[in-house]
Amino acid sequence: MTNPEKTSRNPQPGPEQGETHLEVIPLGGMGEIGKNIFAYRYDDEIMVVDGGLAFPDAHQMGIDLIIPRIDYLQQNAALIKGWILTHGHEDHIGGLPYILPRLPRVPVYGAPLTLGLVREKLAEFGVKDGDVDLREVGLNDKVRIGKHFHVEFIRMTHSIPDNAGYILTTPVGRVLHTGDFKLDEHPSDGLLSDLPRIEQAGKDGVLLLISDSTNAERPGRTPSEAEVAKNIEEVIANCRGRVFLTTFASQVNRIQNILHIAHRQGRRVVMEGRSMLKYAQVAQALGHLETPDPFLTNEEVGELQDQQVLYLCTGSQGQPMSVLSRLAFGTHAKIALRRGDSVILSSNPIPGNEEAVNLVINRLYEIGVDVYYPPTYRVHASGHGSQEELATILNLSRPKFFLPWHGEPRHQINHARLAQTLPRPPKRTLIAKNGDVVRLGPDEFKVTGTVPAGAVYVDGLGVGDISDEILLDRVSMSQEGILIMTAVLHPSPHVEIVSRGFVRANRDLDNQIRKVALEAIEGGVREKKRLEDVRDDMYGAVRRFVRKVTGRNPVLIPMIVD
Amino acid sequence: MTNPEKTSRNPQPGPEQGETHLEVIPLGGMGEIGKNIFAYRYDDEIMVVDGGLAFPDAHQMGIDLIIPRIDYLQQNAALIKGWILTHGHEDHIGGLPYILPRLPRVPVYGAPLTLGLVREKLAEFGVKDGDVDLREVGLNDKVRIGKHFHVEFIRMTHSIPDNAGYILTTPVGRVLHTGDFKLDEHPSDGLLSDLPRIEQAGKDGVLLLISDSTNAERPGRTPSEAEVAKNIEEVIANCRGRVFLTTFASQVNRIQNILHIAHRQGRRVVMEGRSMLKYAQVAQALGHLETPDPFLTNEEVGELQDQQVLYLCTGSQGQPMSVLSRLAFGTHAKIALRRGDSVILSSNPIPGNEEAVNLVINRLYEIGVDVYYPPTYRVHASGHGSQEELATILNLSRPKFFLPWHGEPRHQINHARLAQTLPRPPKRTLIAKNGDVVRLGPDEFKVTGTVPAGAVYVDGLGVGDISDEILLDRVSMSQEGILIMTAVLHPSPHVEIVSRGFVRANRDLDNQIRKVALEAIEGGVREKKRLEDVRDDMYGAVRRFVRKVTGRNPVLIPMIVD
Repeated sequence: MTNPEKTSRNPQPGPEQGETHLEVIPLGGMGEIGKNIFAYRYDDEIMVVDGGLAFPDAHQMGIDLIIPRIDYLQQNAALIKGWILTHGHEDHIGGLPYILPRLPRVPVYGAPLTLGLVREKLAEFGVKDGDVDLREVGLNDKVRIGKHFHVEFIRMTHSIPDNAGYILTTPVGRVLHTGDFKLDEHPSDGLLSDLPRIEQAGKDGVLLLISDSTNAERPGRTPSEAEVAKNIEEVIANCRGRVFLTTFASQVNRIQNILHIAHRQGRRVVMEGRSMLKYAQVAQALGHLETPDPFLTNEEVGELQDQQVLYLCTGSQGQPMSVLSRLAFGTHAKIALRRGDSVILSSNPIPGNEEAVNLVINRLYEIGVDVYYPPTYRVHASGHGSQEELATILNLSRPKFFLPWHGEPRHQINHARLAQTLPRPPKRTLIAKNGDVVRLGPDEFKVTGTVPAGAVYVDGLGVGDISDEILLDRVSMSQEGILIMTAVLHPSPHVEIVSRGFVRANRDLDNQIRKVALEAIEGGVREKKRLEDVRDDMYGAVRRFVRKVTGRNPVLIPMIVD
Repeated sequence: MTNPEKTSRNPQPGPEQGETHLEVIPLGGMGEIGKNIFAYRYDDEIMVVDGGLAFPDAHQMGIDLIIPRIDYLQQNAALIKGWILTHGHEDHIGGLPYILPRLPRVPVYGAPLTLGLVREKLAEFGVKDGDVDLREVGLNDKVRIGKHFHVEFIRMTHSIPDNAGYILTTPVGRVLHTGDFKLDEHPSDGLLSDLPRIEQAGKDGVLLLISDSTNAERPGRTPSEAEVAKNIEEVIANCRGRVFLTTFASQVNRIQNILHIAHRQGRRVVMEGRSMLKYAQVAQALGHLETPDPFLTNEEVGELQDQQVLYLCTGSQGQPMSVLSRLAFGTHAKIALRRGDSVILSSNPIPGNEEAVNLVINRLYEIGVDVYYPPTYRVHASGHGSQEELATILNLSRPKFFLPWHGEPRHQINHARLAQTLPRPPKRTLIAKNGDVVRLGPDEFKVTGTVPAGAVYVDGLGVGDISDEILLDRVSMSQEGILIMTAVLHPSPHVEIVSRGFVRANRDLDNQIRKVALEAIEGGVREKKRLEDVRDDMYGAVRRFVRKVTGRNPVLIPMIVD
């Protein structure tokens, strides 16, 4: 950890002393979309925000998910005074089952649905209730964390209920963090973003704004969930057979609207897929999901006519084991799609999932079902605000300093540029990275150092036992395959060849490789070289030979059995 | 080959006999975008159209490119009377160096630029001029192939000059094949699509239309190349430093417009990247690329000011070795990007390349250059017509039968639906697959059988030596890694463990695995099992153990050295 200016030698500083500052330390979610986690440090106190996960990209092969490195928090564990959670999406709470058990038990504040989803998740991982200190707050509540952090939750509309931003009041000034948001004027629960509170904060003075950059490249406004619902209802009203609709299970607002649509259209809803059920149950239990009609199971549907059924199912990202993929590929145990059915994808592929989703869509067409998806049908909208909404927040809060957050560099930089076009642009904007220590004072806003930050890979039962080198090996093997040569020296030298993912079994080539390997070994043995050197000779000779005759570079594993 | 109704027993049939039909046999490009190749068969004569390649998707790991299976052509080689080429894009001619040498020498007809690019390509592969019979045609020319195929080339606008569709007149009737097209009203060479000829064909009677489905899901019209050029010029006019622009090297019309823009804006052009140079040289030599100023090399740029230079470079798809990627990652040997430079991506990522392009864009932002790309800037347009253009062709040609082509099922089916909404819809539309034998007669249009069709993988120097099983192995290894156990039986049994891409080196785990393997072997040896059975025991024991303690399923290679 490099944190040269930490203030622990000055235990009770105040702004009036002119030396004091707050450190803002993003450990995830800065310069990327995913695994959001943020630390604030003032003097010898740390407050943490969120603890999300990320999904692997194409080069992170075989990885299940990614959680943020928390070395900084572990090294300063005694200073952590509390934790706040903005909302219940995976990229904000999905890392908590890995993170919380590794740190001291401190109060974790969040709105009811957020905590409901956290509880569900912790239980799944066998973390006991008593091991964590979850504390429910309402979305106007204020809490104090440690001596210095005063947090006021404020409601922001997003694609899940109970979504919060917050105003953090510290000795150096006021920080407004939007959390994830879009400014939805027609939210399904009727609860608007608290713009008046943001405006008031702006009047009182916002030293730093930290705002969601996801859609900073999109002009205009993100469509309201109500508009999406209207478009979905239009599609469903015209469907004569069964309807299968997929969306993220965590889009609880969307799902709420769909339940009302189903009721109005005389369709009973069947939930298919574990995560779909889980989110619905938690939201329902907490009063965040009104079910005009009870859900049916697939078995109970038998009585109904096709046009009386709507399946809500997982698989909006083309995940191979999801309900929609199994339906598309005809491998679902109980349900078979047929001509006359309609499938609605109320979703967009996350970057990296385009091919998988495209495959599903093509299979659905081949089955002969009607398929509805954006942009042809406007049955999806992002949960994140576009440029005009981002501008509204900047204009209302009039921050002195600005930290574009929740975005890749392209999003952060376009958010920064947007801010510069406004009537009262921030005095200074920083494009920060994970691990940057951003020092904030009444007249100070700069990166003063870095702390460890990055990705921990979770694969199978292992957390952190996959390294970047291992991923590089996986990439190499996926591109070129692997060739294993086992040389047995006694009684007389011979070589065994095994390959995977290399080229079609080819006795001629195998024999040639064996011959090349054997010659290298016999030469080495004659010259009485050390075993390691003999092995290296075999490796080099085979590598050159294989490259020459096949144009390829498989991963080569030379073994010698003496 | 299954082709039960082939007509060779009836060698001279004519339409008046009422028994006659044409077979239309797509061997690539149907139900997919890429590797276009088409066979027509009438009686004992075959005519072939195009011979393209495709690029691998994410699951075709390590593959360089894909060419179509041509078993049908090889099995009926003696019947092939000639070949026609529609245009010079890779997905229409890129497979020819692999395909032509495997078949008898027959006349291959194409427009000058198309043949120029084919020659370049054949030379690269060492195919001698005399081995192929390339015959230049103009885009109004008529050629006869065999006794029965009368081909009339017709000009269609696309993103490359000398682009053709054709009218094929056969004893059973007239086929109109659009080839790739958009209806560009402002083509850079001033040469419009020959709609009057299509209208005349419609009046004379088109039995079958085969039309480009790529953008059948897009409403409206695809923007003209002139509009794209206008937008690019606006961007460049505002750039004060160096400009780096990337597009497909094969977008010769786009490149022509950019050369004119550079001239007007007082910028000299440097071509960077092998394919960029190659296309430009061939097009220039054939009079298809007017260069208002000679190209400069990067060395000659030294004299000029930043705002007098425009680099045209490869890398629009984020390919790791391309010029733009090397610039973005700072690995270009001669050129370093700096603040003040501008990069224009006059391109969209092809599905599957989104992540790679996104990575490049983010790196460019981090360097601090200005980056311009769609949709924020309208500096790119597709080369394929949208719904209104597709409707124009259907309305003008008024086909009796319709075969949506050059598209995945989603595109073919939306093209078919579009046709049904028009005033005079086709009598019948078929959604065909590669290998389908489509039987066409004056009153007949149906799939009557299939012939072999599919993908041949090209990897390194090998063509066809990568099988689907090998690709499956690559996928498995990329997900879980590989674990090799070599058991040596003498003098006393012991086991060596090597892994790649599995988990971080871990002596405990290795020892445990060795122990499990050894126990299995010793058990087998005690029971005097056969060596294969001992090996299977070791495999099974280790598989169960590894799955239990790590939750993973690496590819396991058990070897026994006796």
